[in-house]
Amino acid sequence: MTRFSERLLEAQRARKSVLCVGLDPDVQQMPKHLQASQSPAKSIKHFNEGIIQATAPFACAFKLNFAFYEALGAGGHEVLRHTLDCIPEGLITIADAKRGDIGNSARQYAHAILGELGFDACTVAPYMGHDAVLPFLQYEGRAAFVLTRTSNASAKDFQEVPYQSEPLFHLVARHVNRWNEASAGTAGLVVGATSPSALRSLRELCPTLPFLIPGIGAQGGAPGDIAPAAMGPVIVSSSRAILYASNGTDFADRAAQAARHTRNLLTSYVSATC
Amino acid sequence: MTRFSERLLEAQRARKSVLCVGLDPDVQQMPKHLQASQSPAKSIKHFNEGIIQATAPFACAFKLNFAFYEALGAGGHEVLRHTLDCIPEGLITIADAKRGDIGNSARQYAHAILGELGFDACTVAPYMGHDAVLPFLQYEGRAAFVLTRTSNASAKDFQEVPYQSEPLFHLVARHVNRWNEASAGTAGLVVGATSPSALRSLRELCPTLPFLIPGIGAQGGAPGDIAPAAMGPVIVSSSRAILYASNGTDFADRAAQAARHTRNLLTSYVSATC
Repeated sequence: MTRFSERLLEAQRARKSVLCVGLDPDVQQMPKHLQASQSPAKSIKHFNEGIIQATAPFACAFKLNFAFYEALGAGGHEVLRHTLDCIPEGLITIADAKRGDIGNSARQYAHAILGELGFDACTVAPYMGHDAVLPFLQYEGRAAFVLTRTSNASAKDFQEVPYQSEPLFHLVARHVNRWNEASAGTAGLVVGATSPSALRSLRELCPTLPFLIPGIGAQGGAPGDIAPAAMGPVIVSSSRAILYASNGTDFADRAAQAARHTRNLLTSYVSATC
Repeated sequence: MTRFSERLLEAQRARKSVLCVGLDPDVQQMPKHLQASQSPAKSIKHFNEGIIQATAPFACAFKLNFAFYEALGAGGHEVLRHTLDCIPEGLITIADAKRGDIGNSARQYAHAILGELGFDACTVAPYMGHDAVLPFLQYEGRAAFVLTRTSNASAKDFQEVPYQSEPLFHLVARHVNRWNEASAGTAGLVVGATSPSALRSLRELCPTLPFLIPGIGAQGGAPGDIAPAAMGPVIVSSSRAILYASNGTDFADRAAQAARHTRNLLTSYVSATC
């Protein structure tokens, strides 16, 4: 089976894009005409269909934030699966589920997400150590992106604790490097665009690992902030700035414009890959 | 609304028990007669019904490991809700979901688990810092148990990184103490029974926080290992040793025996609370 990094490169070349559109569908922020006289589940299905169709020409990947689907209760799983089915063949699908459990539990989560649902990649949390990550690395051709230096303000609470004159997140990255070697290239890092210095130091530590980079757009990062990481493979995710570019009937067109604009800006920093 | 700690104490006094039965239903390990000619979802519903009815007299709480329900796919949510409905009034229900995300995503997870499903408590991961935990602490009378020193072997990878002459998990506990003060008592810690020294030092740091303690039974911890933490509130969880005490038609009776036996052993170490 083709390695994840090769499949990613193929998707990125086909679209000349490192942009990942984050599908975090929040009914409160969606166009009013999609909310009227429909259940939240139906509204989200229609919204996601429109967004995917409009933005797919400019994206190498789509990332589904599981929180927004689980919030739908019993119907959430079906909305998630329907959304997944709408994503064109050849593009990378990422489950932003941030799972982190051990042994048999981790295997069950990995099976549910990478096996049954068939996502290409999943985000995982490192706090419990390698027991929590390795079961996600057993799927050939797929990837697990390990939370390393996240994009939020309180990332500093623990991720920047000093260890041997370096932040803790460097230790996480060193472990991921080792796990990646042992698993034939199924690991990557989540690194926020809001910390360009972390992007730079982590790229030095991990020259070839794919980085999933959230934090541009609504979270405050600018496309140029990802430049320090762009010597290696990157997937740059934007959600709200694209999804809610308009809350009128033109939401899909405006999302496409925002996606194309962001894709073009990003491409100027990653000309090596695209 | 009554504080979580008071509701916990009430449940523990009613059952003279600090035992939590972990509902991690693995079809492969279940009695053969429950597997025959039924879908996995139906098998698990019947299995859980039998286990809950048989062990509830000896338990103060039930903990549902979300991995095993998500592995069922589209039907998982309904099995989870059915299982929750089988748990007698007055006992504490814990979602072992180990969620860890930020801002709006964390609020969606908290709403899904503590709001819509109505669990009394949820486990959460600390790696992303307080952004990931605080939304779970906003539910009066409920609790979020923060992963602090987990029961698995690779807990050491990051949790024991030294920081100011102490392990990182002490820093996590100090933060949880502060968050708990700010949230009127809705926080607790997850601390594995497999590390009695961590149970002791964390109890010194957090004299009044409830500890959710997995790791006795199949994971190798003995009931006596929890003694160092028993000067404060504890919920001690056992899953496999109770669920799979027998894989014959007597599984419920044998689970009840195992639960009663474990309850009695635990009670001898926590006479102050029960």
